Amino acid sequence: MAPSGQKKKGILERLDAGEVVIGDGGFVFALEKRGYVKAGPWTPEAAAEHPEAVRQLHREFLRAGANVMQTFTFYASDDKLENRGNVQRFTGQQINEAACDLAREVAEEGDALVAGGVSQTPSFLSCKSENDVKQIFKKQLDVFVQKNVDFLIAEYFEHVEEAEWAVQVLKSTGKPVAATLCIGPEGDLNGISPGECAVRLVKAGAQIVGVNCHFDPEMCVKTVRMMKEGVEKAGLKAHYMSQPLAYHTPDCNRQGFIDLPEFPFSLEPRILSRWDMQKYAREAYDAGIRYIGGCCGFEPYHVRALAEELTAERGFLPAGSDKHGLWGAELKMHTKPWVRARARRDYWEKLKPASGRPYCPAFSMPDSWGVTKGHADLMQQKEATTQDQLKELFTKADQTLKMETSR
Amino acid sequence: MAPSGQKKKGILERLDAGEVVIGDGGFVFALEKRGYVKAGPWTPEAAAEHPEAVRQLHREFLRAGANVMQTFTFYASDDKLENRGNVQRFTGQQINEAACDLAREVAEEGDALVAGGVSQTPSFLSCKSENDVKQIFKKQLDVFVQKNVDFLIAEYFEHVEEAEWAVQVLKSTGKPVAATLCIGPEGDLNGISPGECAVRLVKAGAQIVGVNCHFDPEMCVKTVRMMKEGVEKAGLKAHYMSQPLAYHTPDCNRQGFIDLPEFPFSLEPRILSRWDMQKYAREAYDAGIRYIGGCCGFEPYHVRALAEELTAERGFLPAGSDKHGLWGAELKMHTKPWVRARARRDYWEKLKPASGRPYCPAFSMPDSWGVTKGHADLMQQKEATTQDQLKELFTKADQTLKMETSR
Amino acid sequence: MAPSGQKKKGILERLDAGEVVIGDGGFVFALEKRGYVKAGPWTPEAAAEHPEAVRQLHREFLRAGANVMQTFTFYASDDKLENRGNVQRFTGQQINEAACDLAREVAEEGDALVAGGVSQTPSFLSCKSENDVKQIFKKQLDVFVQKNVDFLIAEYFEHVEEAEWAVQVLKSTGKPVAATLCIGPEGDLNGISPGECAVRLVKAGAQIVGVNCHFDPEMCVKTVRMMKEGVEKAGLKAHYMSQPLAYHTPDCNRQGFIDLPEFPFSLEPRILSRWDMQKYAREAYDAGIRYIGGCCGFEPYHVRALAEELTAERGFLPAGSDKHGLWGAELKMHTKPWVRARARRDYWEKLKPASGRPYCPAFSMPDSWGVTKGHADLMQQKEATTQDQLKELFTKADQTLKMETSR
Amino acid sequence: MAPSGQKKKGILERLDAGEVVIGDGGFVFALEKRGYVKAGPWTPEAAAEHPEAVRQLHREFLRAGANVMQTFTFYASDDKLENRGNVQRFTGQQINEAACDLAREVAEEGDALVAGGVSQTPSFLSCKSENDVKQIFKKQLDVFVQKNVDFLIAEYFEHVEEAEWAVQVLKSTGKPVAATLCIGPEGDLNGISPGECAVRLVKAGAQIVGVNCHFDPEMCVKTVRMMKEGVEKAGLKAHYMSQPLAYHTPDCNRQGFIDLPEFPFSLEPRILSRWDMQKYAREAYDAGIRYIGGCCGFEPYHVRALAEELTAERGFLPAGSDKHGLWGAELKMHTKPWVRARARRDYWEKLKPASGRPYCPAFSMPDSWGVTKGHADLMQQKEATTQDQLKELFTKADQTLKMETSR
Repeated sequence: MAPSGQKKKGILERLDAGEVVIGDGGFVFALEKRGYVKAGPWTPEAAAEHPEAVRQLHREFLRAGANVMQTFTFYASDDKLENRGNVQRFTGQQINEAACDLAREVAEEGDALVAGGVSQTPSFLSCKSENDVKQIFKKQLDVFVQKNVDFLIAEYFEHVEEAEWAVQVLKSTGKPVAATLCIGPEGDLNGISPGECAVRLVKAGAQIVGVNCHFDPEMCVKTVRMMKEGVEKAGLKAHYMSQPLAYHTPDCNRQGFIDLPEFPFSLEPRILSRWDMQKYAREAYDAGIRYIGGCCGFEPYHVRALAEELTAERGFLPAGSDKHGLWGAELKMHTKPWVRARARRDYWEKLKPASGRPYCPAFSMPDSWGVTKGHADLMQQKEATTQDQLKELFTKADQTLKMETSR
Repeated sequence: MAPSGQKKKGILERLDAGEVVIGDGGFVFALEKRGYVKAGPWTPEAAAEHPEAVRQLHREFLRAGANVMQTFTFYASDDKLENRGNVQRFTGQQINEAACDLAREVAEEGDALVAGGVSQTPSFLSCKSENDVKQIFKKQLDVFVQKNVDFLIAEYFEHVEEAEWAVQVLKSTGKPVAATLCIGPEGDLNGISPGECAVRLVKAGAQIVGVNCHFDPEMCVKTVRMMKEGVEKAGLKAHYMSQPLAYHTPDCNRQGFIDLPEFPFSLEPRILSRWDMQKYAREAYDAGIRYIGGCCGFEPYHVRALAEELTAERGFLPAGSDKHGLWGAELKMHTKPWVRARARRDYWEKLKPASGRPYCPAFSMPDSWGVTKGHADLMQQKEATTQDQLKELFTKADQTLKMETSR
Repeated sequence: MAPSGQKKKGILERLDAGEVVIGDGGFVFALEKRGYVKAGPWTPEAAAEHPEAVRQLHREFLRAGANVMQTFTFYASDDKLENRGNVQRFTGQQINEAACDLAREVAEEGDALVAGGVSQTPSFLSCKSENDVKQIFKKQLDVFVQKNVDFLIAEYFEHVEEAEWAVQVLKSTGKPVAATLCIGPEGDLNGISPGECAVRLVKAGAQIVGVNCHFDPEMCVKTVRMMKEGVEKAGLKAHYMSQPLAYHTPDCNRQGFIDLPEFPFSLEPRILSRWDMQKYAREAYDAGIRYIGGCCGFEPYHVRALAEELTAERGFLPAGSDKHGLWGAELKMHTKPWVRARARRDYWEKLKPASGRPYCPAFSMPDSWGVTKGHADLMQQKEATTQDQLKELFTKADQTLKMETSR
Repeated sequence: MAPSGQKKKGILERLDAGEVVIGDGGFVFALEKRGYVKAGPWTPEAAAEHPEAVRQLHREFLRAGANVMQTFTFYASDDKLENRGNVQRFTGQQINEAACDLAREVAEEGDALVAGGVSQTPSFLSCKSENDVKQIFKKQLDVFVQKNVDFLIAEYFEHVEEAEWAVQVLKSTGKPVAATLCIGPEGDLNGISPGECAVRLVKAGAQIVGVNCHFDPEMCVKTVRMMKEGVEKAGLKAHYMSQPLAYHTPDCNRQGFIDLPEFPFSLEPRILSRWDMQKYAREAYDAGIRYIGGCCGFEPYHVRALAEELTAERGFLPAGSDKHGLWGAELKMHTKPWVRARARRDYWEKLKPASGRPYCPAFSMPDSWGVTKGHADLMQQKEATTQDQLKELFTKADQTLKMETSR
């Protein structure tokens, strides 16, 4: 932890020095389970409505070892907040400001930096102009600048084009910029490969590139490896980051876990254990990724597992490890002797966890939503691969939504 | 919610009136994941060490619909705190007092009662006398009386004999007493059937009887049904409660999930979904259980699912449901149209969730702890069925632990 | 093998001497896969139509170590042959005679006995009188006597009452009589326990009692164990036999595998391996069962595995083992060195075979036949537990069938 | 069936006319289960030793609809027979002759052709010269010519180079030549793509190309599709055939099912059902494959399912279908009404079969043969990708084998 009063090292300073940076976990999924976020809209009004809940989650990630507190501003662009048909008690500006304050407050309790984040917009999918979309980012950015966040992240983009626009806007501040797409090895929704996506993001000005959300750690590490190869082949340089799901998704296609029939309310059997997380941290590190965090599904103990796996590399344990022995060491204190016998790495590394669900399969079939009447055109959308088709379909669907919710 | 200033209805008043009482979820497992409890000792020092974390979890359960705030005093008896070899910054009294204050503080934010809880003691397994064991309970009870909790719970007992002793002590206060064993349909560790156990607890003075922990909802409801049959056959009367695990355990034997190879760090694939919870709430209600809560593994959204399933019976939704439409209704606001198509009961009720783990089975094999050197006698213990054998083995094992931890 | 010219030891002589008797496998399922039996009717006209196919299967079971050639006369009672609406090219008498001749021909190639078999009749379920049902058995029996089989088996009865009638008829010949029910631990379709069933069969005159078909080896051994306890408790004596399925059925209820949604055409993933069979042979032997064979799903290599597991007890290997080293020993000759490394018991005993079906579960849900229109009363039948209800329903169903097939 | 006395149409005549040719199934696996073939050596001495068993299996495949009787001469080259350390009662010539006679005898019972087959040789892997290897093929070919088989198949080659040599030798006879590799989409063991392999085989003189063994139907159809694309892109012409495993192998790597831990004795849960086979027949047909058969694991009922699926295309049902209604139609005759309700296509197409093995996973982990002492170099071999490395390792391993078996 940084001695009090001493200026913290910036994100690029750390990465340039070869340090491991542990990211935080996913806020919308964790807070949905705690009762503060609506699945569906996934908007972050809780930052203003229930600051104590957001603060507590920040603090738990900090204790777990996170070096970055991302402002809870996911989907907090004005067009998104309006679009969701949600009558808000708070303006977008109020939410963004509250989120910055909470992240800063907790970051000061330890050695963490504050990162302001923007993500994909309904405006892009509704065929708004580059300028219109950039205005959306700009508005959130104004808050970040005013609140003086330490660096910026453009995250959760399905189309590299929109991510480039975001990076270009964020770059204008002079602060370090990271950019992550929610893509897998098959590339973005326009079929642009991870390698080419990464090159375009670096050229747009991002110093850190990678992926977040939509796929499990194994697939995310694989995708970032492809990004790294692309960047190096192009003779460029970058730092790499990954913030995957905490759900196993070996049966996912290009759309990622959004397409799984279990999304978002029956994903439980897919949750990674802490040991799965240690494996992820090691694989990410070995792939040359130094900014290692998580996204949807990550709870504080998942982040702690990343920090614990990389204890030797980082040189210290997170605060939260005073409540967690490495590899289950604290089970030595368990009442039942045979549980004590599990206080060892070998036991947990070899164990294959059972689902306890003998009527359930390992993989899931494509979602049977075609059954729903009135949704005949959805299948078409899923198969649509060009951006234009997608834009058209989303616009149509969003108009329908607005009509439905205005009734 | 009770109008401010109005005295709340007591636990028996509610149950006698036929109301549904929603319990809260498990603190030790939830707080272990948040970084405040050590697995193994499972002791609740966080009540004094990190009150903000305990307070926040209480609040989330309250928002989720819980009518009871259990004091976070599990394993907070002096003999347990000492036995775990844990050098504590706080005395048992301080922890118990802090836990009472936190529960009361949050209970006052809504229509919840405070319940003080005691659970099984190392003293009983170490063959201490009835009087010695009762003194242990008495010490915790003094705090509960001083802090004026609303009622008392004797929970997590593997032997009905010790639970009877606890009930006898708790009864002395004149407050209502609930008693739950951590047993399944096979009965307690001495092989005493659920029906007989329940009769003994009622005769000892408990007004509410049931089970908690160790088994999944299906098995717990089945066990309470057997208890109810026993009580009615004996011509007695009682209220019934169940606070099961949030883990599927169809492959468990008498010891419950403690015996599963995945306990406690690889249970993720077994976690119940919110829809599993709604099924549990309905089955518990149909079995005549009116105090319906949860134990290890329950997160706030699990409790909310109980409250939502019983909306018609209770007449209102919990506060947390302003962030959760019934049966996924809020997915109507999701960006992807095919996810919107999932905003309906039929979809989630029929879905069989996949594990995403093609290398893992549905059930788990008996734990291979026999491999560990120096634990040759553990198998013997697992097979031991009489209390005397168990006591002897635990005493021996605890002596070893003390030697190990004193080094 | 018995020296040529020497009279073979009878079935009781062998069992009284403590010898292991290996039974053969299931003919209808094996010959259905080879193209000679119709699933549904399951009648054995192949004995007369395609004797070469039946002879070859007998021979394979003999080579595999079987000491008994059961005549292929399952469901060859006149009422069954007629009832199936099947225009036959052969009379029941011709089929029964041909079956006896084939069994005898192959039995003479080795040390095997010929057993004539009768099984449950449509007449019983159609509420025919005891006398009528006994006449049905008598007619098959006349052929067995004329062809001089070595002993008799009454097998595949769901109601012990009908089995008793069969035993009484068979006893009249003076030949040894074995009787097996197709029941599990829950007892016969009238709910009569395995123990009581066995006592009744012994009292009716059977010297050998046990179970066949409907359940997997584990459940069959368990059921025979219950039969043995019943017989011994009643102060009686008997020999015990089991001829289970070669399919895993842990999820079966009282009706056995007939009720599994996969019956009879998608049972493949449940097929036991040869190693599963060795485990069965050992468990059956340890339970005191000395007549150990198989039923539906058993192929020659399954029977060979029984004989190989009991090599020490029997003192010799079957002829077919000249093509099969114990525990995979012959893999030493495989081209790939890593397959050679599998030529050892340890490897195969520990291996958990994968299904290769990631979209399929471990257990199957109750059959959704309720969907079929016109079958509303089927559910009722499945739930029917008294014999009278069942008889009524079957009669009704069979009348419908006759009408349908006469069109 | 061809009217008696009329000359049968040749294989190319049929394929040129667009007819579907149904192949037969796998002999070594089927006869191993019947007790006539040793797993490991997999040599076909049964043709001479137990002709009745081989004849019966030919006949069952014929009845099932097979248009081709492959001579049971797999691994019947002199070098293989010797190499397996097997003291033979019959010479290679005797075995090859007997196999030809049996295939011809049964082919004359219906409308089937006789195909003489050669497969990969130990000589190739032992780095023998092209000339030496060709001499091996030549020796088997002499028997085929003398016995006047209808056409020739070079099958089960892991290296396209050796297959080319085989085709060149077989071409010398003027008879039609088919060539199948045991490869998947990743290509041969030297990494040569399916497309290139096919082009080379066509250029070497094969009129029919495709794959057999090692992978499941889905992967085989995919591989042949790649072959077809390669051939068409090269401006060449060919007919296409596939003879896959009857085992699900979605988790296989380049070596195919030989690498699965379950090979060859615990593959049961992976066996395809008849409905899986109908799906395969349809997919193969739709991919332009007209010679559709099977390999290891195929039983007669699997072949019958191919013929039944293609009834409309072929214009008739196989003889064996007089014992099998389409889509379970004959279940109409079953005793239990709820089983009768399954006599329909919809039921079987939608059913997901359960494994009945709750302790087993869907996929299998890489074989843990590394544990075996003395096999430290096996892992190295598995990873070896160039032909030279493989040859060297196999030579070394075979020398060890010879030493071991000569003791």
